[in-house]
Amino acid sequence: MTAKVAILGASGYTGAELVRLLATHQGIEIAALSADRKAGMAMADVFPFLRHLDLPKLQKIDEIDFSGIDLCFCALPHATTQQVVAALPRTLKIVDLSADFRLRDPAEYERWYGQPHTAIDLQKEAVYGLTEFYRDEIRAARLVAGTGCNAATGQYALRPLISKGCIDLDDILIDLKAGVSGAGRSLKENLLHAELSGGTHSYSAGGKHRHLGEFDQEFSALAGRPVRVRFTPHLLPMNRGILATVYVRGNPAEVHETLATAYRDEVFLKVLPFGALPSTRDIAGSNFCHIGVIGDRVPGHATVIAVLDNLTKGSSGQAIQNANLMLGLPETEGLMLAPVFP
Amino acid sequence: MTAKVAILGASGYTGAELVRLLATHQGIEIAALSADRKAGMAMADVFPFLRHLDLPKLQKIDEIDFSGIDLCFCALPHATTQQVVAALPRTLKIVDLSADFRLRDPAEYERWYGQPHTAIDLQKEAVYGLTEFYRDEIRAARLVAGTGCNAATGQYALRPLISKGCIDLDDILIDLKAGVSGAGRSLKENLLHAELSGGTHSYSAGGKHRHLGEFDQEFSALAGRPVRVRFTPHLLPMNRGILATVYVRGNPAEVHETLATAYRDEVFLKVLPFGALPSTRDIAGSNFCHIGVIGDRVPGHATVIAVLDNLTKGSSGQAIQNANLMLGLPETEGLMLAPVFP
Amino acid sequence: MTAKVAILGASGYTGAELVRLLATHQGIEIAALSADRKAGMAMADVFPFLRHLDLPKLQKIDEIDFSGIDLCFCALPHATTQQVVAALPRTLKIVDLSADFRLRDPAEYERWYGQPHTAIDLQKEAVYGLTEFYRDEIRAARLVAGTGCNAATGQYALRPLISKGCIDLDDILIDLKAGVSGAGRSLKENLLHAELSGGTHSYSAGGKHRHLGEFDQEFSALAGRPVRVRFTPHLLPMNRGILATVYVRGNPAEVHETLATAYRDEVFLKVLPFGALPSTRDIAGSNFCHIGVIGDRVPGHATVIAVLDNLTKGSSGQAIQNANLMLGLPETEGLMLAPVFP
Amino acid sequence: MTAKVAILGASGYTGAELVRLLATHQGIEIAALSADRKAGMAMADVFPFLRHLDLPKLQKIDEIDFSGIDLCFCALPHATTQQVVAALPRTLKIVDLSADFRLRDPAEYERWYGQPHTAIDLQKEAVYGLTEFYRDEIRAARLVAGTGCNAATGQYALRPLISKGCIDLDDILIDLKAGVSGAGRSLKENLLHAELSGGTHSYSAGGKHRHLGEFDQEFSALAGRPVRVRFTPHLLPMNRGILATVYVRGNPAEVHETLATAYRDEVFLKVLPFGALPSTRDIAGSNFCHIGVIGDRVPGHATVIAVLDNLTKGSSGQAIQNANLMLGLPETEGLMLAPVFP
Repeated sequence: MTAKVAILGASGYTGAELVRLLATHQGIEIAALSADRKAGMAMADVFPFLRHLDLPKLQKIDEIDFSGIDLCFCALPHATTQQVVAALPRTLKIVDLSADFRLRDPAEYERWYGQPHTAIDLQKEAVYGLTEFYRDEIRAARLVAGTGCNAATGQYALRPLISKGCIDLDDILIDLKAGVSGAGRSLKENLLHAELSGGTHSYSAGGKHRHLGEFDQEFSALAGRPVRVRFTPHLLPMNRGILATVYVRGNPAEVHETLATAYRDEVFLKVLPFGALPSTRDIAGSNFCHIGVIGDRVPGHATVIAVLDNLTKGSSGQAIQNANLMLGLPETEGLMLAPVFP
Repeated sequence: MTAKVAILGASGYTGAELVRLLATHQGIEIAALSADRKAGMAMADVFPFLRHLDLPKLQKIDEIDFSGIDLCFCALPHATTQQVVAALPRTLKIVDLSADFRLRDPAEYERWYGQPHTAIDLQKEAVYGLTEFYRDEIRAARLVAGTGCNAATGQYALRPLISKGCIDLDDILIDLKAGVSGAGRSLKENLLHAELSGGTHSYSAGGKHRHLGEFDQEFSALAGRPVRVRFTPHLLPMNRGILATVYVRGNPAEVHETLATAYRDEVFLKVLPFGALPSTRDIAGSNFCHIGVIGDRVPGHATVIAVLDNLTKGSSGQAIQNANLMLGLPETEGLMLAPVFP
Repeated sequence: MTAKVAILGASGYTGAELVRLLATHQGIEIAALSADRKAGMAMADVFPFLRHLDLPKLQKIDEIDFSGIDLCFCALPHATTQQVVAALPRTLKIVDLSADFRLRDPAEYERWYGQPHTAIDLQKEAVYGLTEFYRDEIRAARLVAGTGCNAATGQYALRPLISKGCIDLDDILIDLKAGVSGAGRSLKENLLHAELSGGTHSYSAGGKHRHLGEFDQEFSALAGRPVRVRFTPHLLPMNRGILATVYVRGNPAEVHETLATAYRDEVFLKVLPFGALPSTRDIAGSNFCHIGVIGDRVPGHATVIAVLDNLTKGSSGQAIQNANLMLGLPETEGLMLAPVFP
Repeated sequence: MTAKVAILGASGYTGAELVRLLATHQGIEIAALSADRKAGMAMADVFPFLRHLDLPKLQKIDEIDFSGIDLCFCALPHATTQQVVAALPRTLKIVDLSADFRLRDPAEYERWYGQPHTAIDLQKEAVYGLTEFYRDEIRAARLVAGTGCNAATGQYALRPLISKGCIDLDDILIDLKAGVSGAGRSLKENLLHAELSGGTHSYSAGGKHRHLGEFDQEFSALAGRPVRVRFTPHLLPMNRGILATVYVRGNPAEVHETLATAYRDEVFLKVLPFGALPSTRDIAGSNFCHIGVIGDRVPGHATVIAVLDNLTKGSSGQAIQNANLMLGLPETEGLMLAPVFP
């Protein structure tokens, strides 16, 4: 017996990635797809790469009959999301991919997203969706808030180190390199091929990137005291993938051992042998995250490098992993696709 | 019950693509991997993107115990291949991805590949591996010769038209645009990122490309008389994908109708509505082939555009499709992965 | 003594390319820059790569004082252009980069651009800007209409062959591969890096591309009778460069000899040795056009391949070459920059 | 009157870049080109993008007549270089682009390059080629050692800060992103387009990159005590450009002011307004270096981001800048080419 799901916001990249992954999922069937501005269109006309699938037409959200639907993936912009989710039937399980329910503190939400939250009850109810660290809560949750893709990458590199207390909490630096699909299907000059290809630049540097809200919330909770990392994202001329170079003070061997132990039984989190350096090419299109650790020539410093695919493990793959838990399906169902190389 | 296979030449791109696709195949298990120069290494050290899989170590071919192996994928260079295959046990089914058994006429082989064939009996025995057109023979075959990736693309665009006789056989032109993975993992200056990215050029123009041997053989057999197409390949700054723009004389509507009818029941061959133009982005990483037809403003001319992924439908996906038939498995098993976009 | 120029439409790619090339031009000084929506901004804020130059601020067109300006480059969208140019002082020399004055026949303009021309007198006055073929007229012209970038590429490959009558005028096919900067700074989904990189597709196939208007006009005039080429453009994941693969019926050696002779004294048009195949990488960023000729294995067919940089020789470089002639400066001034490779 | 130069090692990327830049240089003429393995070939056959230039044939070094040559650019691999330079006439001025004469301490050379230096006298004689900081010495030098491209980028970001003492010398971190042309024309699998495009990875992390030898030498000399920076390079899917994200402890406004003051009169070094973030796209193909400074949300931390083109300002452009000084030519001659965008 398969579960029935709806995907709201199916005309964006994370929506399309959900469909791509569900195409070979044995336990989930797509029962409805929404895209307000493209309602009435076939999904194959919006994303011709999905032409081989037999999919429902795109609808407006309020045209969807949610009876018979078990779970709803919500891949809408933030702010819009909280209004939409508040209006959905309470019987529906929801995996949200937006930023709207990631931050538990309404003040923090307002600070990072520039407007008050309008669905504070839902915000409180939501479980943070970093699967490997919230498994039990996610299994029992009605509403799961998918993490930011950068936030996931940094947390995979750092959470076990902060929990164990083996690094200096006041000197953590994340220099992150991100592919462009993380910016979504936005029509901006700097996302044009002519402008983006062949070069790189940093953006939201100096502590302005919104995913810092998630780092602050999660790392502080783990440490039991405020933790404020430094974080500089860079945009790279590639479509998929995030590489986070995370600089910490600590014993490199202990850092490596801590991560290797923490993730020993995790199917999707692979800690490389000490000194091996991961590449985004090795996880593109998949739900895997590779993590490498190396010591610096300057004693007492270690570098942790984590890579994942922002659209998969950083977003839609994570969402399905969480949905699997919520629906009582095997956690890895539909997610064992190998990366695509070259 | 799963079939056991060996992959010879697992350190090249087509070998790695076989492993990628077999990773989620329900009916085939990889029992042995060979790579002579990298024997003794783990596959994950040669291709870290396959790190999550539990794979046999790379061996030399003569170290492999072929008892218990049902089928062997052979992804070796041409010339080497005929020697290796001749030495394999006759009880083994073989899907070859090289050029060695594609041409039935030894003189043609020598003409296009510059040396005499040394295993002429095998050459005669081999079945040409363009699945949709040789299904019955492939089901019964011991040795199947995978097609060239460019040759497959051109044939999908043209075979039904030649069979039906609805185009001028003396005025067929294939202008082909190919991604670089088709050139394999060869260390050549012009394949370096610094030299290839950002530009394009044609190569083997004017009738020199070896895949013309396949076009000549197959089209002439279909037509019952010699057919000699013109063929200009171009190398593009992209990794996967072939787009063949095929110019024919004929009635555009009839051309479209002929292709649509011929492929009506084919899972992997999708003929777009008349006038729609396919993109390689929509098939990358998958076993699908999209075909578009448009008429020219100059009456009596039609353009057929076919796209496929050279590593998948053009090579390793095709090989698995053939292996499925040879092993009595469902033809599409392991091959329904959606394309990866963006 | 240097000439003073204004550049209208300086916030687009061809405007920026004009500034790039004029930066090291010894005979021309930029006196005014316009960009209506960005008026008031510094050019360095619109195009930070021009930061090192001391440039006038962007203005609205009607704020520019044209007294003292010798020549005006007009890099505005078509339709807008004819209105703007009609309002400029008649004493001003004008090099237009838009499509508005390329077609001499108002009916043809309306047919290809979908609206009546509103400045028919100017249209008649304009000289077609393919420098090597209209040198004398350009020297004497007040208004020069720059060619389409695809139109330039195809004409460099074909004009001498048509003039000499050494090819079949009824069987000319141009399969063209174009980089994305030719589409301008337009905000369209299919021009995003995430969508364009890594793949290719054709567009405006079958006789719909507007540059066909130029081919028809020019080739028919040369031949003294209607000539209708077939033309299929493809968009490639590269920023600069056009490669036109032109298929003709004729004697390959004669085709080569005809082009080599015609361009013997041309600084910017380089005919390669017979059989050599050009690459867009070898002309990127420069005003050079490389042309190769090869014979086909099917007798009586030749392939001519021409490459140029759409922003330079196909547009802004051509414009400066024409401006040099109009201003009595050496034709190559400012245009001898070597291509940029890798 | 023009100076005559030879370029040894003209078949690599830095050699070709020298030729590209000298093509429009008014004071230097190329009198000889060497490339041992390609001796006898025309430069246009090795680098067709230089086809329009009238260049001497490639020779073996010992075939070159150095009489009449004023200056020699040496673009050979390290180790080979010291032997070649030792054998050149003492009357010849030399600008070396290799690593052989960058490190003044023979022990450091041996440590970083794995073999003893064989021309220690030349090593002592050589002046370090970071033009803006060694101008007087370079003017008077016979032998100038061009800097590493990464080393140049990091130094432009840091030297004034170290000199002034406004940052913590024990907490300097350079996270660097480099385009692939810096790896040269080497035939390595990971430099193939199929492997490099679309992804990123770090290399020589943890203190292993050879350019650390230069950082150590130069920063320690400036500080008057040992300085050991941390340095993690990453390879990006782009051909030209380096972006160094440099993390320092210090007052961000003071950091910005110090750099802006130091480079106020430098033509090629542009400090952006405080908070502005540079992009490699804005300097590609040029001799310019853009530097941005931003403060972190964590007080007391500043981030300096410097970008330059590794082949130009990081190597061949720098070499010509130095040659201009050595030959008594204007320092900027031939180097004012605008970047190429898009």
